[in-house]
Amino acid sequence: MLHIDIAVVKVPRYGASESGDTLEVIERPGGGLSVVLVDGQGSGRGAKTLSNLIATRAISQLKDGARDGIVARAVHDYLYTYRMGQASATLNILSIDFASGSLRVSRNNPAPFFVLSAEQVQLHNEPSTPIGLYPSTRPVITELALHSGLQIVMFTDGLLKAGERYGVDMELGNYLAGWRSESDDPATALAEALLNRAMELDRNEPTDDISIVVAAVVGRTSPHRARRMTVSVPIERIIECHEDGGNGVGD
Amino acid sequence: MLHIDIAVVKVPRYGASESGDTLEVIERPGGGLSVVLVDGQGSGRGAKTLSNLIATRAISQLKDGARDGIVARAVHDYLYTYRMGQASATLNILSIDFASGSLRVSRNNPAPFFVLSAEQVQLHNEPSTPIGLYPSTRPVITELALHSGLQIVMFTDGLLKAGERYGVDMELGNYLAGWRSESDDPATALAEALLNRAMELDRNEPTDDISIVVAAVVGRTSPHRARRMTVSVPIERIIECHEDGGNGVGD
Repeated sequence: MLHIDIAVVKVPRYGASESGDTLEVIERPGGGLSVVLVDGQGSGRGAKTLSNLIATRAISQLKDGARDGIVARAVHDYLYTYRMGQASATLNILSIDFASGSLRVSRNNPAPFFVLSAEQVQLHNEPSTPIGLYPSTRPVITELALHSGLQIVMFTDGLLKAGERYGVDMELGNYLAGWRSESDDPATALAEALLNRAMELDRNEPTDDISIVVAAVVGRTSPHRARRMTVSVPIERIIECHEDGGNGVGD
Repeated sequence: MLHIDIAVVKVPRYGASESGDTLEVIERPGGGLSVVLVDGQGSGRGAKTLSNLIATRAISQLKDGARDGIVARAVHDYLYTYRMGQASATLNILSIDFASGSLRVSRNNPAPFFVLSAEQVQLHNEPSTPIGLYPSTRPVITELALHSGLQIVMFTDGLLKAGERYGVDMELGNYLAGWRSESDDPATALAEALLNRAMELDRNEPTDDISIVVAAVVGRTSPHRARRMTVSVPIERIIECHEDGGNGVGD
């Protein structure tokens, strides 16, 4: 039976208490999943607040059944209206839509994404602009049929910048072209390998927030048709919290 | 360094194409995570639509920073208003709140939850009613300080019914009291063990949707302060989709 496996790794830039990227995964109301990845302009708490705001509006609309391309435009219009073209963010929506049997990437992001499939690596680098800056921004939409062996690699631009400070390059295309994994869990294997490589090039001090998403279509026998999810997050006190942030009991 | 690990397993009842339960995990805007688990009244597509609607409203409000207890009430009021007391659902919100350093369970569910900590198992069975049926329903809120070794086990009532048809009982309290795991990943180990036990008792044909959530506070060295997530979902065509469900390209 075919499964969709999604693996996410996410690190803040060196010295920052939290990543300015926001990533959410939700179940689509018609069946399937959507991953929303937002990189807010700037850094620190301001970037985080912005990316959280954008991601929140996007997932609310997706959960209500709105189409991905419409969501990307509506979220852009919202940001453009309320921040008057002064704030930008990148927005990627990766959807696995069981109703149409397809995988869809809606991209408002100059950073590309990659499609791996049967020994082939495809770079999707079509010109795309972030949301928030100019009127009527649209996403670039790529649709692919779900088939065994398909892998999508999507990320924020922090990954591309790894090693830049030391004059070395991720050479992501070459790396992916040479990637072979015999793992039962290819999505996690690839996401971890990419993080390790980025960390090596940045000598463990990334200059920007890095978020990596790998989605893989995997054949696997599963006796119970179970859905599974695991999340692991380091517990840390957010320093720049609101003054009354420590008093959150909802009663 | 302390990490919060969350493991989720979810199976539909035997013969159903999808579970009527909806489970979403979101990042809290002030830091931390919330898990929203909804079991909609009835079964099949109707139950799923209801639980999706409730979960959507809950996560939208949580992402906007609303307090858990307020969210539970607002969602109840919404359901009660629009379905005029004719539809019910159970709602559990499990939050790990980094701002307050606490773990919080808001429960509108007759089914209990368990707290495991230092060789001790605590049953939380305080009387609690589902949302949607009566005016002014409130959640039962339990707050716990985050500390290493803490584990929370939360589920929909399908887990309690496992084996009922064959006159056997999950004896969940006893099982958890006897639970010892030396795994590096205690949340996943416990969630899988509970699913296996339920499936055994139900002879692989569960009579109700089962969703299990285990949250564990784990000490672990992590060089990169990375956040990680994995999702694995069997790909299936949803049969009862809308007529135009197959035409989802958002352009």
